[in-house]
Amino acid sequence: KNIAILAGDGIGPEVTAEAVKVLDAIAETFGHQFQYTDALIGAAAINATGNPFPEATEESCKSADAILFGAIGDPKYDNDPNAKVRPEQGLLKMRKNLGLFANVRPVSSYDALLPISPLKEHIIKGTDFVVFRELTGGIYFGEPRGRSEDGNTAFDSCVYSKTEIERISHLAFKAAENRRKKLTLVDKANVLATSRLWRETVKDLSSQYPEVALDFMFVDNAAMKIIQNPKDFDVVLTENMFGDIITDEASVISGSLGLLPSASLGLKSSLFEPIHGSYPQAAGKGIANPIGAILSAAMLLEYAFDLKEECQIIKDAVNSALNIGYGTEDIFPDEGKSTSEVGDFISQ
Amino acid sequence: KNIAILAGDGIGPEVTAEAVKVLDAIAETFGHQFQYTDALIGAAAINATGNPFPEATEESCKSADAILFGAIGDPKYDNDPNAKVRPEQGLLKMRKNLGLFANVRPVSSYDALLPISPLKEHIIKGTDFVVFRELTGGIYFGEPRGRSEDGNTAFDSCVYSKTEIERISHLAFKAAENRRKKLTLVDKANVLATSRLWRETVKDLSSQYPEVALDFMFVDNAAMKIIQNPKDFDVVLTENMFGDIITDEASVISGSLGLLPSASLGLKSSLFEPIHGSYPQAAGKGIANPIGAILSAAMLLEYAFDLKEECQIIKDAVNSALNIGYGTEDIFPDEGKSTSEVGDFISQ
Ligand SMILES: CC(C)[C@H](C(=O)O)[C@@H](O)C(=O)O
Ligand SMILES: CC(C)[C@H](C(=O)O)[C@@H](O)C(=O)O
Repeated sequence: KNIAILAGDGIGPEVTAEAVKVLDAIAETFGHQFQYTDALIGAAAINATGNPFPEATEESCKSADAILFGAIGDPKYDNDPNAKVRPEQGLLKMRKNLGLFANVRPVSSYDALLPISPLKEHIIKGTDFVVFRELTGGIYFGEPRGRSEDGNTAFDSCVYSKTEIERISHLAFKAAENRRKKLTLVDKANVLATSRLWRETVKDLSSQYPEVALDFMFVDNAAMKIIQNPKDFDVVLTENMFGDIITDEASVISGSLGLLPSASLGLKSSLFEPIHGSYPQAAGKGIANPIGAILSAAMLLEYAFDLKEECQIIKDAVNSALNIGYGTEDIFPDEGKSTSEVGDFISQ
Repeated sequence: KNIAILAGDGIGPEVTAEAVKVLDAIAETFGHQFQYTDALIGAAAINATGNPFPEATEESCKSADAILFGAIGDPKYDNDPNAKVRPEQGLLKMRKNLGLFANVRPVSSYDALLPISPLKEHIIKGTDFVVFRELTGGIYFGEPRGRSEDGNTAFDSCVYSKTEIERISHLAFKAAENRRKKLTLVDKANVLATSRLWRETVKDLSSQYPEVALDFMFVDNAAMKIIQNPKDFDVVLTENMFGDIITDEASVISGSLGLLPSASLGLKSSLFEPIHGSYPQAAGKGIANPIGAILSAAMLLEYAFDLKEECQIIKDAVNSALNIGYGTEDIFPDEGKSTSEVGDFISQ
């Protein structure tokens, strides 16, 4: 099996290295062969080639059986509105060109981390939901976007087609069938035309999934309910921008953004990445939490290679580490281990 | 002084009645004269006139010295993508036609309510920030919006001009000068052209406010940080949709959406409304929390009539009620008082 490794910027390379360590341990134990191909993306790729998603990287991704991704982003581009090339363009172009339309983000609480969550224990204990975020449409990609000629007006477009909504909705309905059979569509149908198309389309599809209870929630309300009653959610389906916001928000339930993995699924490719960003302030210090990347590698084994047992073993190893208080300083401030110590520990 | 009363839908009329009760009590104590003019809005206005924001209502608003607003929204419109007229259109048209461009939403924790918040006490105790949400631009109003001819594609437009950004930014900077001198712009400048214009414009303005420390935060990160470290925020400035989401989210800090007031300011008019919606499930049951509406009336006295002492007296009365556990069931589940009992108590 061939895995493209796109480590990217900031803490991306550090955490990806630990995920690869864990994949190697799995390969050895189970006698699998994983081949890795490194490729450039983000600011790292801009520095080397001027392009945040070079063609060579696209080729590597397309010929790989799965992609393991770190993070992209560099603060030097964030406050420069005139930067012509931006690391995020690489990420977005990659998602688009590889057709990675469904971003799957599981959220759960860890008993060992209940003390560090800002939320009360009885609120979060037992939380277990998964967000299906549409990833190649909406305001991230809609045209036209840009500036008026005089530069005094800016505009973005949010566009969705029925087809785009249907393909991810089918995945979300199927996931709900295999879980607690509840699907919540998060939208802003009282204001947005695109949200009304989402609501209409998902409602139409629901007759194909009679076992799944479908409900609708406005995004403002959802942002509140996810904190108040996270256990009420099972499968959450939403568009690109809303999914970006509520999954980061939901990370407080687990206790740290550093813990959460994600899978981005397309028809031909699939990519796995921690949901934390490049976290430049922590880069190079050996303090980045590798668990999000490691759990992304676990999702890779399950989703891309159908290796369920291997996936479960990684999850168990992560749990064991957390249960004995072995982790980086974001989750265990008093006795934080280094990124590579945590990777070593989990690989054992 | 002439106050237009737009009670609206759902629990709107119930909570507005209590706010008026409190205004009457203030008028009597301080010898003020408040004249009220009732006007229709939302589903109530559709039922009566076919128009969610009838001209007569607009006239009342324009000739009033301030507007007290309840809520709008009726579930029968939410799942009907073909409804031509929607209550929310009334709200949006009102905001637009009256030029209410700055929505000011204070968020604070109440010691008496620390036990009911889903967040841990040490996280929220002492929280005190205010969100300046742009209210008449962005994706709520941008054109084009709608459906393709075949109905299979929907689109919304997010549009911002420098002028729109500047006028609310000045208010936010000034508020920061009178507070802890920190301003956080929440945007998605790594993806959106409109956000980059926000960042550029706000940065340019900041030289006029040298005492204010300005920082920038991506909305996904902000949605997380508001839960993790709410005390870090002082003044938050953001565009329309992001403001909608993060202020509802932030309501968990206070303990209930039912507590939060807001002011919507324009050059000629100002409107005051609780941030909770029409909450149709609670309508007519006498269980709606009137405190958001009552505190909105307090903001009205301060912002529209410059009656600071009167405003403070209402806030103190609300605090006293909360401190002895007097409130509706959303905040005191075991011994919830009715909407009008709470209004009576606070008016005393
Ligand atoms: C870096 C950024 C463009 C990206 C996004 O908004 O999609 C990130 O926040 C994510 O969630 O993967
Ligand atoms: C009812 C709805 C259109 C409105 C909004 O999104 O602005 C409400 O949520 C609010 O925050 O005032």
